Amino acid sequence: MGLDEAASKPHEKLGAVLAAEMDAVNELIRTRMASKHAPRIPEVTAHLVEAGGKRLRPMLTLAAAKMCGYDGPYHVHLAATVEFIHTATLLHDDVVDESAQRRGRPTANLLWDNKSSVLVGDYLFSRSFQLMTETGSLDVLRILSNASATIAEGEVLQLTAAQDLTTSEDTYLQVVRGKTAALFSAATEVGGVIADAPKDHVQALYDFGDALGVSFQIVDDLLDYWGSDATGKNIGDDFRERKMSLPLIKALAKADDTEHDFWKRTIAKGDQRDGDLEHALELLNKHGALEDTRAEALAWSDKAKAALATLPQSEIRDLLIDIADYVVARVN
Amino acid sequence: MGLDEAASKPHEKLGAVLAAEMDAVNELIRTRMASKHAPRIPEVTAHLVEAGGKRLRPMLTLAAAKMCGYDGPYHVHLAATVEFIHTATLLHDDVVDESAQRRGRPTANLLWDNKSSVLVGDYLFSRSFQLMTETGSLDVLRILSNASATIAEGEVLQLTAAQDLTTSEDTYLQVVRGKTAALFSAATEVGGVIADAPKDHVQALYDFGDALGVSFQIVDDLLDYWGSDATGKNIGDDFRERKMSLPLIKALAKADDTEHDFWKRTIAKGDQRDGDLEHALELLNKHGALEDTRAEALAWSDKAKAALATLPQSEIRDLLIDIADYVVARVN
Repeated sequence: MGLDEAASKPHEKLGAVLAAEMDAVNELIRTRMASKHAPRIPEVTAHLVEAGGKRLRPMLTLAAAKMCGYDGPYHVHLAATVEFIHTATLLHDDVVDESAQRRGRPTANLLWDNKSSVLVGDYLFSRSFQLMTETGSLDVLRILSNASATIAEGEVLQLTAAQDLTTSEDTYLQVVRGKTAALFSAATEVGGVIADAPKDHVQALYDFGDALGVSFQIVDDLLDYWGSDATGKNIGDDFRERKMSLPLIKALAKADDTEHDFWKRTIAKGDQRDGDLEHALELLNKHGALEDTRAEALAWSDKAKAALATLPQSEIRDLLIDIADYVVARVN
Repeated sequence: MGLDEAASKPHEKLGAVLAAEMDAVNELIRTRMASKHAPRIPEVTAHLVEAGGKRLRPMLTLAAAKMCGYDGPYHVHLAATVEFIHTATLLHDDVVDESAQRRGRPTANLLWDNKSSVLVGDYLFSRSFQLMTETGSLDVLRILSNASATIAEGEVLQLTAAQDLTTSEDTYLQVVRGKTAALFSAATEVGGVIADAPKDHVQALYDFGDALGVSFQIVDDLLDYWGSDATGKNIGDDFRERKMSLPLIKALAKADDTEHDFWKRTIAKGDQRDGDLEHALELLNKHGALEDTRAEALAWSDKAKAALATLPQSEIRDLLIDIADYVVARVN
């Protein structure tokens, strides 16, 4: 899929197909975000919710449920659940990373403070948990509670792997599964489960979400070295935060002694000087680390599409396939 | 009840009665705290778990379930759930308060860092959520998800009320219900619910937990001005953090203009100088704010006992009544 089709934005097309349900999700999010006693809560979250994002995760839940013929009300609850978990994670990430920008806007913890980010994140987690309990499905609760644990575990693993030059691609994949893919796969899986879809369909939905999430995160990590201002990301954030992302792991694997010393100083020891980011980019290009990372993202996108191919053809299925293409089109 | 009886520590007696179940709870906590991929997690939590505390909350759940004749395995899951939620809250509180001490030991965020406290707290929340899902009781899930939301809301409310001299006793009570009583009442209520106890017994257990929690927190806030080093609390922490706790609210209600200026400078503006804490204590004593606060703690302890009195007599019930006495005996 080329840039021309990418420009037509399949997630927007999917958003149009799911417009009525997405309106219901947004309404539910607004209602449940409110707090009678603590007006600070919607103030903090409105900042994130208005910034928008693509609402990709809740759309995945709605799409999965509809593809499986669901006609009850609870896919809307689950979509809102997934978005609440995502937003809570962002709020806690902002504390953790001391990052100055999120989606091109100042992060909540600069506008407010670390305290509000931690506690409002906790509030959204609790709200998500209330929402999923309302569905009355213990299967759904099991999937989403497991996903929550995997997310937190992945974030902690990322923390301990940061600055560690011996981090393997396996460990990187485990971090990515935690911080991103776990919520994608839970989002698609619960859509199938709430619709009472056959086991192999639920498995296909899980596999699709998992591979899409991995692909999505690899692209995100790639854009941190490759990106433009249009993505709202600061180039080199991961380098400055000394994160062991895939491009770095690949460049390290091919580093000579001088290069290894450079990575040791900048990443392991955190002694970064003017021109270091530029030199890091040179090394990444020299060893084809960005191209190799891109190839992995494409392979995961292909896996995602292959999983969906086992499901009956439908307009929504085809738009999800287009989304798997679009995710990697960002680095075409 | 006087100091003599208090010295015999009824929660230790209850711990002895529930010894087998408490062992099972501690074993479950150890197992579920472990993380294959992120060894940082048990390192951070072991610090809190070893520090011990009285394990009062999980004991309340076990006691409630046993009092209601429960003989299944899930009260142990619920007790561990409650302790995980409590520990997660402590970890996030430590980030939030930038407090240097907890239970007389350095807090996790000084030994490790804010990042670990936030993420490991999230991990424990997720684990608690997995544990309660395993009980298969939607009623339990509803109660504990509601409690989680109330806790987070209370913490945010406390944040916005801090430094606000117009904070009312009603707002204070709302904060206390959130930060403390919500988990106490959920702990006792789910014990009754898992035992399938009659509605009025479940209500009595809820009322007991709620009143005990309020009493417990009022005493805690009182000890912040009244305490000794034996409690492991730094006297004046709340003053330094400019928290609007009950003693302060009561002293403010009787403050003349000069005193009001003092509170405005030290609490609202945060301009604190040598001798200010001592002067604050003088003002609290002058207006009987500490005595009045103590009287409220006693009244809530009485409410807790009255709620239990509606349940059939048993050894456990009588020990819970002793605990309600013991909580306030700390300020006798």
